[in-house]
Amino acid sequence: MNMRDIIIAKRDRQSLTDEQISFFVKGVTDGVIPDYQTSALLMAIVLNGMDDREMTTLTLEMASSGKQMDLSYIEGVAVDKHSTGGVGDKITPVLLPLIASFGVEVVKLSGRGLGFTGGTVDKFESIKGFNVEVDTNDFRQYVEKSGMVISGQTPDLAPADKILYALRDVTGTVDSIPLIASSIMSKKIAGGAKGIVLDVTCGSGAFMKDYDMAKELAEAMIRIGKLAGRKTVAVITNMDEPLGRFCGNILEMQEVLNTVTGKGEDDVVEVVTELAYHLITIAGKDAGMSPEVLRSEIKARLSDGSCYEKYKLLISSQGGELDPYGAPVYVDRPFDCMHVNSPDAGYVQSIRTDLIGQASVLLGAGRLKKTDTIDYGAGIGFFAKVGDRVERGDSLCALYQGENSVIPEERLFDAMDLILEAYEVGPEKPVKKPSILGVVT
Amino acid sequence: MNMRDIIIAKRDRQSLTDEQISFFVKGVTDGVIPDYQTSALLMAIVLNGMDDREMTTLTLEMASSGKQMDLSYIEGVAVDKHSTGGVGDKITPVLLPLIASFGVEVVKLSGRGLGFTGGTVDKFESIKGFNVEVDTNDFRQYVEKSGMVISGQTPDLAPADKILYALRDVTGTVDSIPLIASSIMSKKIAGGAKGIVLDVTCGSGAFMKDYDMAKELAEAMIRIGKLAGRKTVAVITNMDEPLGRFCGNILEMQEVLNTVTGKGEDDVVEVVTELAYHLITIAGKDAGMSPEVLRSEIKARLSDGSCYEKYKLLISSQGGELDPYGAPVYVDRPFDCMHVNSPDAGYVQSIRTDLIGQASVLLGAGRLKKTDTIDYGAGIGFFAKVGDRVERGDSLCALYQGENSVIPEERLFDAMDLILEAYEVGPEKPVKKPSILGVVT
Repeated sequence: MNMRDIIIAKRDRQSLTDEQISFFVKGVTDGVIPDYQTSALLMAIVLNGMDDREMTTLTLEMASSGKQMDLSYIEGVAVDKHSTGGVGDKITPVLLPLIASFGVEVVKLSGRGLGFTGGTVDKFESIKGFNVEVDTNDFRQYVEKSGMVISGQTPDLAPADKILYALRDVTGTVDSIPLIASSIMSKKIAGGAKGIVLDVTCGSGAFMKDYDMAKELAEAMIRIGKLAGRKTVAVITNMDEPLGRFCGNILEMQEVLNTVTGKGEDDVVEVVTELAYHLITIAGKDAGMSPEVLRSEIKARLSDGSCYEKYKLLISSQGGELDPYGAPVYVDRPFDCMHVNSPDAGYVQSIRTDLIGQASVLLGAGRLKKTDTIDYGAGIGFFAKVGDRVERGDSLCALYQGENSVIPEERLFDAMDLILEAYEVGPEKPVKKPSILGVVT
Repeated sequence: MNMRDIIIAKRDRQSLTDEQISFFVKGVTDGVIPDYQTSALLMAIVLNGMDDREMTTLTLEMASSGKQMDLSYIEGVAVDKHSTGGVGDKITPVLLPLIASFGVEVVKLSGRGLGFTGGTVDKFESIKGFNVEVDTNDFRQYVEKSGMVISGQTPDLAPADKILYALRDVTGTVDSIPLIASSIMSKKIAGGAKGIVLDVTCGSGAFMKDYDMAKELAEAMIRIGKLAGRKTVAVITNMDEPLGRFCGNILEMQEVLNTVTGKGEDDVVEVVTELAYHLITIAGKDAGMSPEVLRSEIKARLSDGSCYEKYKLLISSQGGELDPYGAPVYVDRPFDCMHVNSPDAGYVQSIRTDLIGQASVLLGAGRLKKTDTIDYGAGIGFFAKVGDRVERGDSLCALYQGENSVIPEERLFDAMDLILEAYEVGPEKPVKKPSILGVVT
């Protein structure tokens, strides 16, 4: 078997055999296949696709290319959640304590933000003292203590996926349902999950721009999950405007605090509830409640303090500081440095979330390169969201920076321009999209 | 401009701009584009194609990626000929002196053989003393002396093409009409040709397996020629059996001597005549003869000694030895070491030329790797060709090795097996394909 023949097989629209896929993934992991052959195969996959068996084999081979976590100590079915990324996506910090209040134990591996997509690890790191670099060997001890643990991705999980992703990024081979689906699923499986709930974001600020594409990706992951023996559910959520009222690390954690204490924005609550519902059900912790009862019980836990208690437990167990009133202490303080005002009167028709994400990066809230440092206090607050009425001169957004940061004026104005471009204001009140666009099982 | 966007454009079936193609070729030439990006783009081109303008720009950019030869000293239109390769293809050594006898001056750059395809340079090197490493600066002096010069490819012509070809070979991106066409045309244009005659071989021993593919390649090169301002003609020739009676370096040069002295095989004479006709016409050396008159005059020059005189002049001007009777002196002597006999009676239906080529390489006549040495005396003689009647036990082929070479017995038997597999013998006399399958202008 040699790599050239494998490339030619895929170029000629053949289905790769399990042996060929295994040879490829092992060769990539061991560094014996040169990058130029790998990228040629990746492009052939992008253009000629993969069938379900190929995707599943690729997923499982990548999952087993490094260490595989054993979560057998977890009570019930070990579940995990993954989001394909968005702007203002503060779901995980709410979701973990929420399902923990139902007895669902979770080991959550998260990434840092890159490009206009934020990362959960950065958000938790905006809490003073919070340690996200938890040693894999200590996970069990955290789970036993607080029912949950959150940690940065460990480099030894699915190393083949990491190598391939780095290459895809620079060779125009990211946009491929089989490659995206197998990349996501391989990390979840290597992480030990037996049940997987996927938040497939859809819209201008998401990887999948329209519903059909999002559905296609969701269905591909569901099929992989089935073939790989993992109970999988995908929730397709709206990312045609930012989620909630804020983006930026501390700003979002403040919104998380609001949400876990019953004062969350409707869209955040809806998405959190739907994801929690599936996670609790798959984990077998629904205690025989009907779907309606379970959903209303989930919402109740946001208001009755049980989610908040678990949230404080999560923070304190990982070393995060809480003030005497039970609120997290952040590493910085967001400072409201400029408002962006509407040039027109009318209704907000849409908010291009990708441009909002770019503006947020310009303010310092995100990274363009992995080595960039971030300003935890930076971000954007949204006064007007889709469907809201604004008059000429009304504030659309507030721009924030860390209290002691200095953003060059030029950057502030560039961010402002992006925001003005992102907001479309028109005369008619638009029909607002629901936060949950669909569920695929 | 960056390479990732160029890859994505072609991935998404866009036509690349001239600036994008120029950026790519310059980056490849300068070594600043990593191979993994180049191979991703090559695969996207293989699968999504290129339009005529893209192919032509790619051709001209590759042609100008290194030194470009100035042949303005040549009388009339500087012409060049290229063959897409075959087994037993001894056309060039006949063609050069033949058209020289009409006053057509030629600078011919040729390659060495690789894989089952022979190379003209190897064939000339089988003549004792023949120097194929002529300095580019001396070409003019040779042309003035004998009207022609033959030389190995100079590494500074179209370096981008060389880099791309090496990468295509290992990434499954060879099979692409735009890439093949632009590769061939770029070398011809860099070589200074204003008129180009292409011998597009077609059949089991050629790169293009069927007529439609050969025609497609021929038409692509004609369109590039038109857009690049080069008068171009393509002759599609049959490669469903070896050309002539022999393959192997000295064996073929012996057949060349027969051909330039009027004793050539019909298929060799036909192909040589057709190519000579177009070269002479494009060069403006037809002296007003009608096509019929010119064609019969070309055949006459093979018999009346004028081609032979030019052939001896070519050999002696490049240092090759001639014996007192005017025949070339070779570096070795082919020794007839084994015959392959027909297991069945019947008519030869077809001869898989690719297998014949592989057998020839096994005997030592060709190279598998660039660094392999070759046995100039090795090769195969064909007693039976398509349409011939054979009885059980009749010799199909003779296997040759250099007089002092020792071929391991195992290899001889492997070669024999390949030849037996190559020959199809059946009860009905088949319709023999013409040597010239078509002409595209």
